[in-house]
Amino acid sequence: MTALLPPSDRSLDVLCVGNAIVDVLAQTDDSFLETHGMVKGSMQLTDPDRARSIYSAMPPAVEISGGSAANTAAGLASLDSSVAFIGKVADDELGEVFAHDIRAAGVAFHGFPATGAEAAAGTARCLICVTPDAQRTMNTSLGVAGQLTTDDIDLSLVPTARVVYLEGYLWDEPAAKSALRNVMGWAAGAGTRVAFTLSDGFCVDRHRAEFLEIIEHHVDILFANEDEICSLYEVDDFDEAARRVAGHCAIACLTRGDAGSVIISSDGERVDVSAVPAELLDTTGAGDLYAAGFLAAWVRGADLLESGRTGSIVAAEAISHLGARPQVNLSVLVKGAL
Amino acid sequence: MTALLPPSDRSLDVLCVGNAIVDVLAQTDDSFLETHGMVKGSMQLTDPDRARSIYSAMPPAVEISGGSAANTAAGLASLDSSVAFIGKVADDELGEVFAHDIRAAGVAFHGFPATGAEAAAGTARCLICVTPDAQRTMNTSLGVAGQLTTDDIDLSLVPTARVVYLEGYLWDEPAAKSALRNVMGWAAGAGTRVAFTLSDGFCVDRHRAEFLEIIEHHVDILFANEDEICSLYEVDDFDEAARRVAGHCAIACLTRGDAGSVIISSDGERVDVSAVPAELLDTTGAGDLYAAGFLAAWVRGADLLESGRTGSIVAAEAISHLGARPQVNLSVLVKGAL
Repeated sequence: MTALLPPSDRSLDVLCVGNAIVDVLAQTDDSFLETHGMVKGSMQLTDPDRARSIYSAMPPAVEISGGSAANTAAGLASLDSSVAFIGKVADDELGEVFAHDIRAAGVAFHGFPATGAEAAAGTARCLICVTPDAQRTMNTSLGVAGQLTTDDIDLSLVPTARVVYLEGYLWDEPAAKSALRNVMGWAAGAGTRVAFTLSDGFCVDRHRAEFLEIIEHHVDILFANEDEICSLYEVDDFDEAARRVAGHCAIACLTRGDAGSVIISSDGERVDVSAVPAELLDTTGAGDLYAAGFLAAWVRGADLLESGRTGSIVAAEAISHLGARPQVNLSVLVKGAL
Repeated sequence: MTALLPPSDRSLDVLCVGNAIVDVLAQTDDSFLETHGMVKGSMQLTDPDRARSIYSAMPPAVEISGGSAANTAAGLASLDSSVAFIGKVADDELGEVFAHDIRAAGVAFHGFPATGAEAAAGTARCLICVTPDAQRTMNTSLGVAGQLTTDDIDLSLVPTARVVYLEGYLWDEPAAKSALRNVMGWAAGAGTRVAFTLSDGFCVDRHRAEFLEIIEHHVDILFANEDEICSLYEVDDFDEAARRVAGHCAIACLTRGDAGSVIISSDGERVDVSAVPAELLDTTGAGDLYAAGFLAAWVRGADLLESGRTGSIVAAEAISHLGARPQVNLSVLVKGAL
């Protein structure tokens, strides 16, 4: 079996599809998580009442654009990849913030804000509690982001991209899931590579059978952290999970926090990549930015080791500050660090 | 002449009145300021069209609650002072953010959000460009904050406070100016001390005669930076400005960035206070937090030197991160540093 390569002759390196979310980040202690029934490190979907109740109890916060695939898109742009993002905002102030930030990051934003009755749910926000161990615990109020349908997606973009990058979180909404299946169908027809992130252990729990099916038949490049890949195969041991994923997709990038990452390719190669040391402040976006680094290098023809190392360098920047979006020019950072 | 002391038997340490603003902070280079006709280090009032044009050109930003007197209020609360804030927000998402953050900081927020037609201008936002030298340049779109009137102020709070703290920026709006004159009138009758900040050199330019009058007759404690006090007396030399202010108010706190501060009292005392070294990232809020530190100590009976040193410690925290609001418990910080 030959190694998977990115297609040539495309105007776009990566087309990302995901939830358009503004993050609301505050530093809390562990007891805050317990009081509000949160599972540390997870993402919980939160109805508006619960979101209000959590927010009113939260310490002073900062608002920073987020969203998993959107963070990856911002990272790719900072790495000089050509990148577009599709996701749904409302015509409210947070929608304006999201659209401004992703465009200002250099990403082509393909999303008309929902208006009128459709916009009533508001732009999605994610209440993120950052504990002293730098772990982030997320409570997402999906708002209009959860109303993404095939109608919101310009499918003609798919054949123009080397890679489409899709987040597992979208599986929680039936219409969005159907939209992503359409994207995968178009990608298969056009030779566009499909990258997919498992997003969250509980998200994997909710959609295990479908995730196993799409990884087998539609996904070329899988991104997962240790918790997610173990959840997918319902095993406790990381190496067992890594053995299980081999052969089900062309490339699987498995991240392990400060233990680095392991990349498994379907031709039997296993590449171990070290983490890049960083002053750990907030792990929000670490996985999203690892994916940005990996893909930015891979679409330019880098091998798995260099692609993984680029992911590690970029993830280290993400965890050294509050919020997921890059605070420095990642292209310059990577040139100095590789 | 005896030194000015705070009154005893009050339930509130400080009542702050100012513009309720959410800051939108981005890192830019100096050429961005030139392109958009900004004067580095200043605050310019910006109409909605110009605000939109600046915002669309700005790099990705973060939203953090701000407002000069509101930052001082948040600092005072973090220093365990009892503090209230009066300012006007709209019933929109940024208004919700402002109200949440100031309450979560431990400040009693006395402000009903404007609704309906009155809310059309929206919650105030300040577009802040932070240049590599850590200087901040501000463009304020006042929105409903500029519609503050005496009707929005519960004047019965004034006699319950040791100090009212008022920001010069409010002088730009006739109705707000009239409201502040009412507050000063009630303060005089109740023996509540009046603290006032000159806010900005251009603001001083716009209102020099009135500022000189209120400092002479109504202000007990004046806060100004070097630029502002020199603008007030239209002199180039700081020491000359410091000589000129002596005798016009009981206490004048003059801040000079990394050169520390000078405190002049009407009984002829001059106290020089060193700055506390800090890793300089963003000077937004440095003056506001200096005032918080000074007042928190002074209302507890500290002398001018200790009050000034507390101001320096707290200002050093403010300039070490993006945004003006404290990121650590200032009370703990000060106990360790004094």
